[in-house]
Amino acid sequence: MLQDKNITVVGLGLIGGSFAMALRDLKPRNLWGIEKNPEIIKSAVDSHILDAAPTDGSDILANSDIIIVALYPKNTVQFISQNKNLFKRGCVITDTSGIKGSLVYDIQNTLDDSIDFIGGHPLAGKAENGYINADKNIFKDSNYIITPTHKNKRENINMLADILKAMHCKSIIEMSPEEHDRIIAYTSQLPHVIAVSLINSLENQYDLAPVIGGSFKDASRVAVLNSELWCELLEANSENILRVIEGFEKNVQLLKGALIDKDKELLTYCFQTAYKKRKEIS
Amino acid sequence: MLQDKNITVVGLGLIGGSFAMALRDLKPRNLWGIEKNPEIIKSAVDSHILDAAPTDGSDILANSDIIIVALYPKNTVQFISQNKNLFKRGCVITDTSGIKGSLVYDIQNTLDDSIDFIGGHPLAGKAENGYINADKNIFKDSNYIITPTHKNKRENINMLADILKAMHCKSIIEMSPEEHDRIIAYTSQLPHVIAVSLINSLENQYDLAPVIGGSFKDASRVAVLNSELWCELLEANSENILRVIEGFEKNVQLLKGALIDKDKELLTYCFQTAYKKRKEIS
Repeated sequence: MLQDKNITVVGLGLIGGSFAMALRDLKPRNLWGIEKNPEIIKSAVDSHILDAAPTDGSDILANSDIIIVALYPKNTVQFISQNKNLFKRGCVITDTSGIKGSLVYDIQNTLDDSIDFIGGHPLAGKAENGYINADKNIFKDSNYIITPTHKNKRENINMLADILKAMHCKSIIEMSPEEHDRIIAYTSQLPHVIAVSLINSLENQYDLAPVIGGSFKDASRVAVLNSELWCELLEANSENILRVIEGFEKNVQLLKGALIDKDKELLTYCFQTAYKKRKEIS
Repeated sequence: MLQDKNITVVGLGLIGGSFAMALRDLKPRNLWGIEKNPEIIKSAVDSHILDAAPTDGSDILANSDIIIVALYPKNTVQFISQNKNLFKRGCVITDTSGIKGSLVYDIQNTLDDSIDFIGGHPLAGKAENGYINADKNIFKDSNYIITPTHKNKRENINMLADILKAMHCKSIIEMSPEEHDRIIAYTSQLPHVIAVSLINSLENQYDLAPVIGGSFKDASRVAVLNSELWCELLEANSENILRVIEGFEKNVQLLKGALIDKDKELLTYCFQTAYKKRKEIS
């Protein structure tokens, strides 16, 4: 499938490194990397995950048919903008950022029409960051959202989806950048806000470790997050996030009110509704 | 260890059934069950998990050295109160209720001093209830809180702890009934309130299943709960729960304020504090 394609991964952190490892199995013509830490490139080339770069960074981009930008959101926009004149005509660029809204349009408006930028968001990850934790299996059975716009060519969207399927992603879901940000605020960003708030409300009086059960561990797991990245993600999607936080707060208040009023009927209603809704999505 | 002890499990639901299965491996003299559904008793006896009862329920209790009451909290108090004159002198009774506060003292005050009631709470379970889901492995590597008071004999507390260890529980933690309820409000009941509120705040506009990642699944997993039991648990511990909900709400409001004010410094502080605290308990 990729034997005539040169692919470049930009940013060899957890996601970029995992991408490189998964793409290696698909046998592209060349698989190159761009990464500010030269030791990571050396390590990836030494272990035959990446091919050695022909000469310098600009040559890599000029010869790449597919480019995966796995940087933080602001750096993604900046990297593409700074290199917009270096990309090969007809190349396909995708990113891995957890927000899509204005990012996708900003990038598409920056680029020449011959270059196809398709936004992407792998619903995959690990608590620990960096190339050292990269693992091609993070994509296995995970979902992947792509956010094409009317500017993208159907053949390129399909090629990207085929690559992701070949990397063993479970579902490739297409939606608009706006829909992505509305949904992801609820399905990903709100659980992170909750995890952080739950763990920060620890009263610090007890040694809790031995009395913690599965429910607490699960609800707080993602509190171990990358603070710099998550500031960017929340700030860029703050309108949607504030809306879902408020919806969540109303439901907490409903339960609280039922407890204060000893309203067993309302409490039961909240529990039964939750049971039914959760069953539907599991 | 238990070859001269008759043990009775009262209530063969998920926890009681799992107890019976785990206790069977410890080879007690007799292992009996009391359960309102006679088919469950028959099934447990047929599959050699329980021994057949000598004659009727009252004979069982009069001959039991150890009794595990695995009923809902109110039914636990009621069962022990109703049968208080049937228990064997010197027997040890424990329960499995998720609240301990007044329950332990109410039961101890009901009973003759020759009968030792020791409160217990297995931090173990499954989303699905009932004997049909019982599994001795739910105790494996799980923590178990016991809440002895000054009324309990040390030898009986140690015997109970030894049985739980033999059932492969990871840690047996002793604390007062009051401390149990204070802590469990935070480590178990609050995550359940959060899971229910998270899932109930679903806007219902989208088919979310394919775009849900691990963070949402984890945070909402325990929303599939037993509504009748959880009404009892929350009502019996409402003062502690309201306190921890309010602590949690303050932390959500802090994050919300930081987002509204675009206060990156405060956002970073919240994230970094959460990261550090969560790392400490994992």
